Amino acid sequence: MTDAPVGGGRPFGKDAALRFRVLHTDGHARRSTLELPHATVELPTFMPVGTQGSVKTLTAADVAGTGARIVLGNTYHLWLRPGAERVHALGGLHHFSRWPHAMLTDSGGFQAFSLARNARGDRLVDLTEEGVAFRSHLDGARCFLSPEEAVRVQSLLGADIQMQLDVCPPGDAQRPVVEAAVRQTTRWARRALATPRKEGQALFGIVQGGTHADLRVAHADELGALDFDGLALGGFSVGEPVRAMHETLAEVAHRLDPTRPRYLMGVGTPEDLVRAVHAGVDMFDCVLPTRNARNGQALTRLGKVVIKNARHKDDPRPLDPECPCPTCAGGYSRAYLRHLFVAKELVVLRLLSLHNLTFYAALMAGAREAIVRGDYDAWMRRTLDDLGTAEVPQLS
Amino acid sequence: MTDAPVGGGRPFGKDAALRFRVLHTDGHARRSTLELPHATVELPTFMPVGTQGSVKTLTAADVAGTGARIVLGNTYHLWLRPGAERVHALGGLHHFSRWPHAMLTDSGGFQAFSLARNARGDRLVDLTEEGVAFRSHLDGARCFLSPEEAVRVQSLLGADIQMQLDVCPPGDAQRPVVEAAVRQTTRWARRALATPRKEGQALFGIVQGGTHADLRVAHADELGALDFDGLALGGFSVGEPVRAMHETLAEVAHRLDPTRPRYLMGVGTPEDLVRAVHAGVDMFDCVLPTRNARNGQALTRLGKVVIKNARHKDDPRPLDPECPCPTCAGGYSRAYLRHLFVAKELVVLRLLSLHNLTFYAALMAGAREAIVRGDYDAWMRRTLDDLGTAEVPQLS
Repeated sequence: MTDAPVGGGRPFGKDAALRFRVLHTDGHARRSTLELPHATVELPTFMPVGTQGSVKTLTAADVAGTGARIVLGNTYHLWLRPGAERVHALGGLHHFSRWPHAMLTDSGGFQAFSLARNARGDRLVDLTEEGVAFRSHLDGARCFLSPEEAVRVQSLLGADIQMQLDVCPPGDAQRPVVEAAVRQTTRWARRALATPRKEGQALFGIVQGGTHADLRVAHADELGALDFDGLALGGFSVGEPVRAMHETLAEVAHRLDPTRPRYLMGVGTPEDLVRAVHAGVDMFDCVLPTRNARNGQALTRLGKVVIKNARHKDDPRPLDPECPCPTCAGGYSRAYLRHLFVAKELVVLRLLSLHNLTFYAALMAGAREAIVRGDYDAWMRRTLDDLGTAEVPQLS
Repeated sequence: MTDAPVGGGRPFGKDAALRFRVLHTDGHARRSTLELPHATVELPTFMPVGTQGSVKTLTAADVAGTGARIVLGNTYHLWLRPGAERVHALGGLHHFSRWPHAMLTDSGGFQAFSLARNARGDRLVDLTEEGVAFRSHLDGARCFLSPEEAVRVQSLLGADIQMQLDVCPPGDAQRPVVEAAVRQTTRWARRALATPRKEGQALFGIVQGGTHADLRVAHADELGALDFDGLALGGFSVGEPVRAMHETLAEVAHRLDPTRPRYLMGVGTPEDLVRAVHAGVDMFDCVLPTRNARNGQALTRLGKVVIKNARHKDDPRPLDPECPCPTCAGGYSRAYLRHLFVAKELVVLRLLSLHNLTFYAALMAGAREAIVRGDYDAWMRRTLDDLGTAEVPQLS
């Protein structure tokens, strides 16, 4: 049993970048708080993604209004445009983007692997022990990302939490490839930790290992022995079967050092979040709620609403009469939202983004309350039922 | 001298749809109030355009936040999609679009002439004494707009103010064409007034005559003899030289019945508004501030800011440090706005729209104050100087 004792957490000396406290546990699920320079964040929590210094279609005030108190910024995008030095000169990413609460930046590695081109123009990067050489997807400029450079760039951006540079193999990679990625990620973890970073910034390590639970657990122990402020689970939702992700998470998440926050990167659907919290995860980020909004999909307690569907033409009801978001509480009817979407009026993308992020924040608030009450299992089953996914796979 | 005596205005019986009161005059410029069912509007005022039931990129709360208390809806667009009957069944345009303040709808004629196709697919309509036959630009459906149908459709939409169906010739039309349009517009004016409309809705007549001041004045007198609640100047900003518009307005606007509000349709730039108020105009609408915003142009007291310009890359200043809009007062730097625009982040279109509409509302508030102070001439010259258009044509 490795669950954190209630009240446990990392020491909070004068140099600590964060203070993490577990308030309640219910099975592997944890209700905790994460004190960061710009906000105290209630966990489990979902972080909206502000890829280019903007959560798409929303202002900072909009995002805060959905309940979010921590957002993610993408280092790769901001590094290439407008440039990390420029953001730093303009006061750092908080000041630049007018976001007053907490912020986490990724290392840039994931996007370098997925968006950039190598020197031959292939959608591949040149990976060496030293780091990753690639060409910008914007203008073909040569770039080089090393563990040290990722820390340097993230220091310039100035978020509350940095992520180490890691190697993230695709979901269908063979075991030897995954093993090599794990070993490389550990070597880069040590280099990241050895690199000076901006005072007050936390640094999280990233556990790889694909859907191999044994590799995951071993890597979690290896990184847990290092002085990271938190531990992330990377390399999920990269093409592997969803069921394999949930099964691996159920075996692995609660094995990550219980005294530190656990962050599942790039995941996921409402169902994914509910199940991962059950497995012991504290933090999430994903483009899904904002991307789906821009595709006209509203996510609700009772499943997905495809707003362009003709059935909504004359429907005077809001997306969800119980939702407190500005769209639902503001009395915007499905009929009006459909009209705006069909007429290509941009405001509907914002109205749906506000709704979806509010739904995600409310979902995490519901999870926190259930953990405190001690009935997370029952809450999870009801929630998944309502979402239309009655079948709950067996979690360990 | 036809200027309204201060305190003058139309009678306000129990059936009156509006009450118009002139509070101050300064030359031909008027400071007045327009009491409508959904708002008391301070004139001179600018009406943001909500073509398809949405002021582009903004919510109703956003628009109200800029200071606007009356918006314009386009009957042509709403009639074709989502349909006037549907809007009516969903509670009318106010309820449908969540706009609680005053609203004006145009007749649909201008867009029928400019957007629709005739039966042969030409960008022309089939104009008869009865009305305008055309095909929808959306799906080619056959439509027919008559003075009576325009009143019926606008009754279903339910705005505070309706506009009569008129004939609006292009800016380069020969005098006989303009004369015919004037005569047709008068015949349609009588038919519009004879058509029952929704209780509480005002109806404005539209003065045509191109840049022929004599035709304009005669038409103004002709329509002024009819029982319209207000008089509009249509057929400006339709391709004629800007100077010709200003010269015609200077001769004509103050000749419109001073006891009724005067509305200059589809105009214009900040310079146009300032000069037209000088000529005696009370109300304006134009897509310019929101369209320019979507093209990356911010309008300020000191002229236009083209936000994608590289000069803004490192500029920490807001668009205008004295502007109270959420974008400027919210601390959004030119550098950040430029980054968002270059990175195609949609939120920047909203931020610039908020700024531009706030600027327009503030410009009209400045005009109102200058009229009350009795120094409109001096205020106009300073304002035009600041806008970078020092040369002020002679106004009559």
